[in-house]
Amino acid sequence: MASPAFLPRLLPARLRALPTTFTVLFVLRWLLLAALVGALAGTASAGFLVALEAVTTWREAHPWALALLPVGGLLVGLAYHHFGNRVVKGNNLILDEIHAPGELIPLRLVPLVLGGTLVTHLFGGSAGREGTAVQMGGALADQLSRWLPRRERRLLLIAGMSAGFASVFGTPLAGAVFGLEVFLLGSMRYEAILPSFLAAVVADAVTRAWGVGHTPYPELASMPLTALGLGCALLAGALFGLTASGFATLTHGLSKQFGRIGYAPLRPVLGGVLVAASMWALGTSRYEGLGVPVIVEAFGHPLPIQDFALKLALTALTLGAGFKGGEVTPLFFIGAALGSALAGVLPLPVALLAGMGFVGVFSGAANTPLACLLMGLELFGTHAGIYLGISCVVAYLFSGHSGIYTAQVIGQAKH
Amino acid sequence: MASPAFLPRLLPARLRALPTTFTVLFVLRWLLLAALVGALAGTASAGFLVALEAVTTWREAHPWALALLPVGGLLVGLAYHHFGNRVVKGNNLILDEIHAPGELIPLRLVPLVLGGTLVTHLFGGSAGREGTAVQMGGALADQLSRWLPRRERRLLLIAGMSAGFASVFGTPLAGAVFGLEVFLLGSMRYEAILPSFLAAVVADAVTRAWGVGHTPYPELASMPLTALGLGCALLAGALFGLTASGFATLTHGLSKQFGRIGYAPLRPVLGGVLVAASMWALGTSRYEGLGVPVIVEAFGHPLPIQDFALKLALTALTLGAGFKGGEVTPLFFIGAALGSALAGVLPLPVALLAGMGFVGVFSGAANTPLACLLMGLELFGTHAGIYLGISCVVAYLFSGHSGIYTAQVIGQAKH
Repeated sequence: MASPAFLPRLLPARLRALPTTFTVLFVLRWLLLAALVGALAGTASAGFLVALEAVTTWREAHPWALALLPVGGLLVGLAYHHFGNRVVKGNNLILDEIHAPGELIPLRLVPLVLGGTLVTHLFGGSAGREGTAVQMGGALADQLSRWLPRRERRLLLIAGMSAGFASVFGTPLAGAVFGLEVFLLGSMRYEAILPSFLAAVVADAVTRAWGVGHTPYPELASMPLTALGLGCALLAGALFGLTASGFATLTHGLSKQFGRIGYAPLRPVLGGVLVAASMWALGTSRYEGLGVPVIVEAFGHPLPIQDFALKLALTALTLGAGFKGGEVTPLFFIGAALGSALAGVLPLPVALLAGMGFVGVFSGAANTPLACLLMGLELFGTHAGIYLGISCVVAYLFSGHSGIYTAQVIGQAKH
Repeated sequence: MASPAFLPRLLPARLRALPTTFTVLFVLRWLLLAALVGALAGTASAGFLVALEAVTTWREAHPWALALLPVGGLLVGLAYHHFGNRVVKGNNLILDEIHAPGELIPLRLVPLVLGGTLVTHLFGGSAGREGTAVQMGGALADQLSRWLPRRERRLLLIAGMSAGFASVFGTPLAGAVFGLEVFLLGSMRYEAILPSFLAAVVADAVTRAWGVGHTPYPELASMPLTALGLGCALLAGALFGLTASGFATLTHGLSKQFGRIGYAPLRPVLGGVLVAASMWALGTSRYEGLGVPVIVEAFGHPLPIQDFALKLALTALTLGAGFKGGEVTPLFFIGAALGSALAGVLPLPVALLAGMGFVGVFSGAANTPLACLLMGLELFGTHAGIYLGISCVVAYLFSGHSGIYTAQVIGQAKH
């Protein structure tokens, strides 16, 4: 237990020595800091979600925008090339700073990732939004670390990631645990549990206070555990985990291939050409952007199997080439679409399988099974909780010892 | 990643070397083991809950039974004195074996803790039931470890605790995480995540398949986060944590005092005299046994403040003297009653405060904030999840670096 940074001198020595006094001071300090982090990250997420909505609506009304994706790629590439520097590492930069604190995360990360993500979505790239929110949350939170003892900077970065995640998806509990869970694979440390929870609930409340809502998903019906149901859940979970691992491998592999183009700004240009050409050849806008309408569709009836595969390939191509936004919403799409397609062969309800895939693929890709379970409970209710839990845990096991975040450190082998 | 214990020889070397093959074998092996553990623990919990119900009904119809509590104490004391040996350590024995594997947990733990708990409840002691279920689950699971490689015994014990907890409370997700969370304070390791989840969901399903139900609690209403609400939640959480710490300190202190009586079987005799005399002097059976009706009452209207304090004192006395059953359901009582009483002074709904106390005090006492949050979501729904989460996290911080389980090892300081 470390000595809190302020106030203690005002207290008599006897009171100061009580463990409870330390805890009170810790809680008060972090209430203040987390409220600040939450207000900053929640406001950033609100603005981001509104802009993303506007950009998506505009793109849907102007399908020809896809043709400009290579130009968008050039813009993103040039911006990161000239102003990016360390910032190009994205989520991994924040994870690196949690593990090995170095320099302050530059504030220019915020406009870069925000602009890069909006451009990516404006021209129809297949990408997400959690990367943007998590990076904005982490970078904004880190600005407060100038005035804090060095050892508390870790907590601030974790709280910032939690706040970004919580507010962009409207899932405060999942956000809180995501920040705690994401930087280590195979174990969790609780030192940041209060900062994470406070920042997450405040950020979510702030985003909602700005009048920004989130996609509602259907509440899953209760489903008793049967031997057949358990077998299906294990099989589906394994497929979700292998899909997650396939996505991570493909994205990293494509990123490496694009890395062979010496002049970095040309990478997203080529990527944009490939993505736009593929989508044009497919003759559908189904795989552009976040793909929220398809995610919702997945809960209603079994989707064709190619939906998950095409979204996976196009997202890996978009992100591997250097476009921005993150991979989580596409992973929701990939998982929900795969689960939905599995309803054609497995005797479980389509909505249940879609929900299991939604959280399962993400659990395997990010190696965050408990955050994903909480997300499932927050979005789909508790009635099908055991199926969501099994999906997240089995997918986590099957995705292997790497994932979408290369800076994640292995705390412990999975089994 | 260790080599699985069976099957691999049947596979060609190339297939055997794939990480996915290891995972498949791991999952299949643990599906079998967890199904066995779940079936054993779930059946034990079902029988225990039915017997506990019968014993409680009989006691409620025969209030004079309280006068025999010292005799019951003698029975429990003699049984543990002559057959107990290591087994008297209860939950802590299982935690010790997880940390430093020694001898197999003797199967006679099961009849001893089962009989001891039923006698405790028959004569009106104030005790719980999770200790019994968790110990039965752990001891039954450990019998399977005779046929397993040594390193997997840990996983089996953790899965057994999860299965016992899940099935006795009807909360499979909380049970799964409880087993993972309870043996370390301040951090969590995921190596047993699959065994825990599988054993917990199977055990819960088996208990339900035996036709044994659980107390339904009201679904908590949605409650947006406000500054006032957050302040109240922090204050309530702090009180829940201090209460948990007070309960643990009092129970350990009383246990030490009773330890000064050289002949162990006399300890619960004296304890029985003191508990029965106190309850007789109070003129109410309100604090006998589990106290489930009072817990339910706490959600309906604010309870008087003495309810929580008297239950705390009488439970500490009952368990400190050597009666059996565990402390969790009384902790639910203490927390729900304290939360309910706080509704008289804090501007939050009484049901919300009761629910926050229910999970909060237990979170502080057992140092298991995430299991308690999941329990809250499973019992009270997700609408008030952020308040439940803050209560569990803040109570966890305020309860200090010890708790009801002395064999819990500090994985990391709380802050």
